Amino acid sequence: MPNPIGIGQVGIGYWGKNLLRNFQALPDAEVVMACDQNADVLDRVARQYPTLATTSRYEDLLESAAVDAVVIATETPQHFAMAEQALGAGKHVFVEKPMAQTVQEAERLVALAEDHDRRLMVGHLLLYHPAFRYVENLIRDGTLGDVHYLYSMRVNLGIIRQRENALESLAPHDLSIALQFIDAAPVAVSAQGQAYLQPDVEDVAFATVYFDDGALAHLHTSWLDPHKIRKVTVVGSQQMAVIDDVASNEKVRLYDKGVDVQPGEMRYADYAEAMTVRTGDIHIPRIDMQEPLRVECQHFLDCIRSGTTPRSDGRNGLAVVKLLDAAQRSLARNGSTVELA
Amino acid sequence: MPNPIGIGQVGIGYWGKNLLRNFQALPDAEVVMACDQNADVLDRVARQYPTLATTSRYEDLLESAAVDAVVIATETPQHFAMAEQALGAGKHVFVEKPMAQTVQEAERLVALAEDHDRRLMVGHLLLYHPAFRYVENLIRDGTLGDVHYLYSMRVNLGIIRQRENALESLAPHDLSIALQFIDAAPVAVSAQGQAYLQPDVEDVAFATVYFDDGALAHLHTSWLDPHKIRKVTVVGSQQMAVIDDVASNEKVRLYDKGVDVQPGEMRYADYAEAMTVRTGDIHIPRIDMQEPLRVECQHFLDCIRSGTTPRSDGRNGLAVVKLLDAAQRSLARNGSTVELA
Amino acid sequence: MPNPIGIGQVGIGYWGKNLLRNFQALPDAEVVMACDQNADVLDRVARQYPTLATTSRYEDLLESAAVDAVVIATETPQHFAMAEQALGAGKHVFVEKPMAQTVQEAERLVALAEDHDRRLMVGHLLLYHPAFRYVENLIRDGTLGDVHYLYSMRVNLGIIRQRENALESLAPHDLSIALQFIDAAPVAVSAQGQAYLQPDVEDVAFATVYFDDGALAHLHTSWLDPHKIRKVTVVGSQQMAVIDDVASNEKVRLYDKGVDVQPGEMRYADYAEAMTVRTGDIHIPRIDMQEPLRVECQHFLDCIRSGTTPRSDGRNGLAVVKLLDAAQRSLARNGSTVELA
Amino acid sequence: MPNPIGIGQVGIGYWGKNLLRNFQALPDAEVVMACDQNADVLDRVARQYPTLATTSRYEDLLESAAVDAVVIATETPQHFAMAEQALGAGKHVFVEKPMAQTVQEAERLVALAEDHDRRLMVGHLLLYHPAFRYVENLIRDGTLGDVHYLYSMRVNLGIIRQRENALESLAPHDLSIALQFIDAAPVAVSAQGQAYLQPDVEDVAFATVYFDDGALAHLHTSWLDPHKIRKVTVVGSQQMAVIDDVASNEKVRLYDKGVDVQPGEMRYADYAEAMTVRTGDIHIPRIDMQEPLRVECQHFLDCIRSGTTPRSDGRNGLAVVKLLDAAQRSLARNGSTVELA
Repeated sequence: MPNPIGIGQVGIGYWGKNLLRNFQALPDAEVVMACDQNADVLDRVARQYPTLATTSRYEDLLESAAVDAVVIATETPQHFAMAEQALGAGKHVFVEKPMAQTVQEAERLVALAEDHDRRLMVGHLLLYHPAFRYVENLIRDGTLGDVHYLYSMRVNLGIIRQRENALESLAPHDLSIALQFIDAAPVAVSAQGQAYLQPDVEDVAFATVYFDDGALAHLHTSWLDPHKIRKVTVVGSQQMAVIDDVASNEKVRLYDKGVDVQPGEMRYADYAEAMTVRTGDIHIPRIDMQEPLRVECQHFLDCIRSGTTPRSDGRNGLAVVKLLDAAQRSLARNGSTVELA
Repeated sequence: MPNPIGIGQVGIGYWGKNLLRNFQALPDAEVVMACDQNADVLDRVARQYPTLATTSRYEDLLESAAVDAVVIATETPQHFAMAEQALGAGKHVFVEKPMAQTVQEAERLVALAEDHDRRLMVGHLLLYHPAFRYVENLIRDGTLGDVHYLYSMRVNLGIIRQRENALESLAPHDLSIALQFIDAAPVAVSAQGQAYLQPDVEDVAFATVYFDDGALAHLHTSWLDPHKIRKVTVVGSQQMAVIDDVASNEKVRLYDKGVDVQPGEMRYADYAEAMTVRTGDIHIPRIDMQEPLRVECQHFLDCIRSGTTPRSDGRNGLAVVKLLDAAQRSLARNGSTVELA
Repeated sequence: MPNPIGIGQVGIGYWGKNLLRNFQALPDAEVVMACDQNADVLDRVARQYPTLATTSRYEDLLESAAVDAVVIATETPQHFAMAEQALGAGKHVFVEKPMAQTVQEAERLVALAEDHDRRLMVGHLLLYHPAFRYVENLIRDGTLGDVHYLYSMRVNLGIIRQRENALESLAPHDLSIALQFIDAAPVAVSAQGQAYLQPDVEDVAFATVYFDDGALAHLHTSWLDPHKIRKVTVVGSQQMAVIDDVASNEKVRLYDKGVDVQPGEMRYADYAEAMTVRTGDIHIPRIDMQEPLRVECQHFLDCIRSGTTPRSDGRNGLAVVKLLDAAQRSLARNGSTVELA
Repeated sequence: MPNPIGIGQVGIGYWGKNLLRNFQALPDAEVVMACDQNADVLDRVARQYPTLATTSRYEDLLESAAVDAVVIATETPQHFAMAEQALGAGKHVFVEKPMAQTVQEAERLVALAEDHDRRLMVGHLLLYHPAFRYVENLIRDGTLGDVHYLYSMRVNLGIIRQRENALESLAPHDLSIALQFIDAAPVAVSAQGQAYLQPDVEDVAFATVYFDDGALAHLHTSWLDPHKIRKVTVVGSQQMAVIDDVASNEKVRLYDKGVDVQPGEMRYADYAEAMTVRTGDIHIPRIDMQEPLRVECQHFLDCIRSGTTPRSDGRNGLAVVKLLDAAQRSLARNGSTVELA
């Protein structure tokens, strides 16, 4: 068995802790250094993982020969600069989503990763989530028919950011899924939202992505909501699927529902006379759940070993950043639609 | 006790049946004539209500001296012309929503009703719904605090129209509620949607209404969806309310939830450090349910008797048509925001 | 087409109204006379059904040549005497459940019906309920495997009787289902309960029926409960089924769950090591719902026409009365088990 | 600060792991030794807690001067003997529920603890559960009125035992709650059940406990059920409470429901005429959840420090064993009621 892959992680906060725990637990990796600006955080990490070196200097990570790959779990505004440095230092990079704040930055990272032949992977967690994988397979094998549209709700009375709005903070998950589930090119984005708690930081935002085949993806994101909902609904021409990620079980529901149109029979009356609705059974498949984060971390290690391209590679991260960037511009223009280049 | 008010109804279809049943059952009204283009429908009505005159000529209704008020439950494109004729003939008018298809038409009806001093009422049913009335009172008395925003879902695999899209067919309900719940002036509308089953008839549509105080109302309408949802969520600064109209009971939930902002304490960290979240009890009030349609019909009769202005009068109907018209124009412009005059 | 069957109904109360409405609506029947002790009730019926004769004398029903069949929807204590008279007068009889209060009475009615060759049917509504029929078929065709046991909850803050306790009032439904679902002979009954609102009238009661193949049926009945639940769970060796009759849809759920025992592998440890649990998909079949009461009434008419034996005939009613009688005796003996003859 | 209390734990299996983790995490305790028959288990513990001594000899625990208190998390049949030895060795004892398998054994342990003046505590976890504490307080302060009856469901397709049946394995939780919530003396128990997977080991069992004030407690336990339910419903004369321990939040619901009896008004009719039903609001209190097991472990330490009697002391454990013993005898007698001495 080869030496474990040396991991250096920067950012050990709310989410970073989970990444650290998972990489630490994987036999194929060894977390050798942890970096954070918060001394208390470093102390806690040192106590919990005695074998781990800690530092407040990011450079230490980059300079350490024991570090093969850098895991970046800092705040969004720092993602680009840190990933750029790490790739420049010849490290493989796992960066949390969104990969960067501008399209140019994201393109730069993709180019850097190719120039240095390093793996660049973005933390689009849902691409590693068994329930989403299950539905993705049903789309691939045609069970759902054509994907007409999908919509997601990601709302909660939860973590309120200051350096990014609800859309930046929550939408990347659903945008990565939309790009995965809809086999077409996005052409435009329209987003609406409002800031209530802090000036210019939208607490609630809605976004619609138009695809060139007529498909739509609609996102509803908010950290100021009474519910706790993380749900995606996919409307296909043959079947419809709902993924409820808050449900402790029964996360996926398949509806054998659809509408068969017979234009010839149309009359100015209600549905029953005009078309044939198909309302069939509902199926709740048993899905073997694994912790998506564990799968994601292992995938990063596997790609480094094999040199293969991650499911959520830089190009995938770039595509999400493009949509996010267009959505932000639409927000800034009071919701007017923004065409994608 | 005075003579009952003579009702003549045109359109006895899917929804018209319910209106007819309710007016028939109210002691203060007598439905004297029913008009429909469908002979089978007229036969069925005649059998069910032997005392009722039936006709396929709308003029018969207008010419009948026994008809004090005309109830219009035909398809949307006919609303304006029929209401115009009825008001011109000196009848009081109850017209189903939307009141008309253009702002000009709606304004014309409002003017006509004033010129002839007739009651003009629009079938904005939710304004007569006990659960919505309950929440409206909580907003009026300040319990919810400032209404930041609200959003509605009105989706189903249900009745598919041909002469109107999902937005026209379903949104008037929620637009009338948004205007009632948000004490501010709407300034712009942005709408996104797509047609899958029929050319140019959107099966799914999303609309966002901007108000001049910063409030938002977001609507999600679809007749091509696996769920059956009719739900409105109101996010206030003090409390949040959810009205679930599909629930057989427990239709209203009040969440003692909110966020108290202390900008001074802000740090670049997660919510807990930045602000104080308030997550309190949930309250499910007992609400005495009456059939909203019954309340609505009685209200129309009361307004005719007393000469008072209906809750959902022509001006209210006009306001909804203005929003609907702006939303349709936004849809036609690929979702770009449309300012209201 | 033959003349409609003449129906005379006695008891037009809370439930009787529904029976009357359904028989009235069936083309194959004509309700010719309604009998009730309450004058207000008779007035209301007369207004609603002008063609109907009304009387407070039960004898009028029995003496009327136009009455082919008598429908008995009075309180339980009157069921036996009225059914006995009606059969004696040569009428077919539909009697609400429970058919009688003692085994002797029930046996007498069965014998009478045979002597006079009249149809005797008991209102065991669930035997005509599409959701229960659906699960019954799955049991018949072996899909569920052996039925190990079933349990029902029938609780509500609802109608409180004075002449019968919660068990008599609510249990007949579930007892008739237990006898239908479990293909074995009941051998003993044990019942526990308590009276809180009225002396000696149990508001809550639990009953367990033992079958000779080892199967169990457990009933939980109460009219003093915060929930509104009408639910039956069937645990089979291959699959498990849940019928939720309060759900507006999704009334049946099939669980592909079970336990495969390998005694050889047993260790003193937890389940995983000891046996193999099978936790598979959940299936929610689409069931075409018809009003069970409509189906039940039509079935009574069909049996009269064809001379065939009703699904819920006198013997079925007798079997339920035997269980109910044993349960009552167990209640009276502080829950000690009562063997069936 | 005093020295931490030295803990020696025997049984580090499915549940024991959780106890070990919690005692380990509490500053006031130090787990000094772990004992288990399974070598793999001991290895795993040794790796996870390097400072911990491990042994397969229970005597080592008893002989260790560093062990102040013994935590017993072995299988039920071993509880008594191990607790007896530990108390005899002058150790404080925490023993998992049920404390013993016979009344005599339980009484012996209570006596021993008193003779040696040691703390004896039983793992009746729900007595330390915030949601149950919340409802207990509502009962104490009279909010619920008189507790008429309560019933619990504890079912799952879960861990199947071989040395104890579903009742022994699951009922102690609910019996301890019944004794806590109902302020009266239990007088009799009746239990029904059946063994399907293993001979003479009941997979499903129902038990009813009669109290001398007329209150009832009904338990439904099963490890062969499609649902996963852990729910207790308390019916009081003033209000009703439901505790749903599977719900991730909203664990407690209070129903302002009840029945006011006016015997004078009674008629032989339905509820509305006979009595006054009170159906009011539903309240879902916010409850600060702490891990019940953590609270329980801390309580054991506090009682050792202060010499006070644990909430779930030996007498409480004995009372539960008495009910369990009576229930088992009732099961063995085909459900006939067993009087308590």
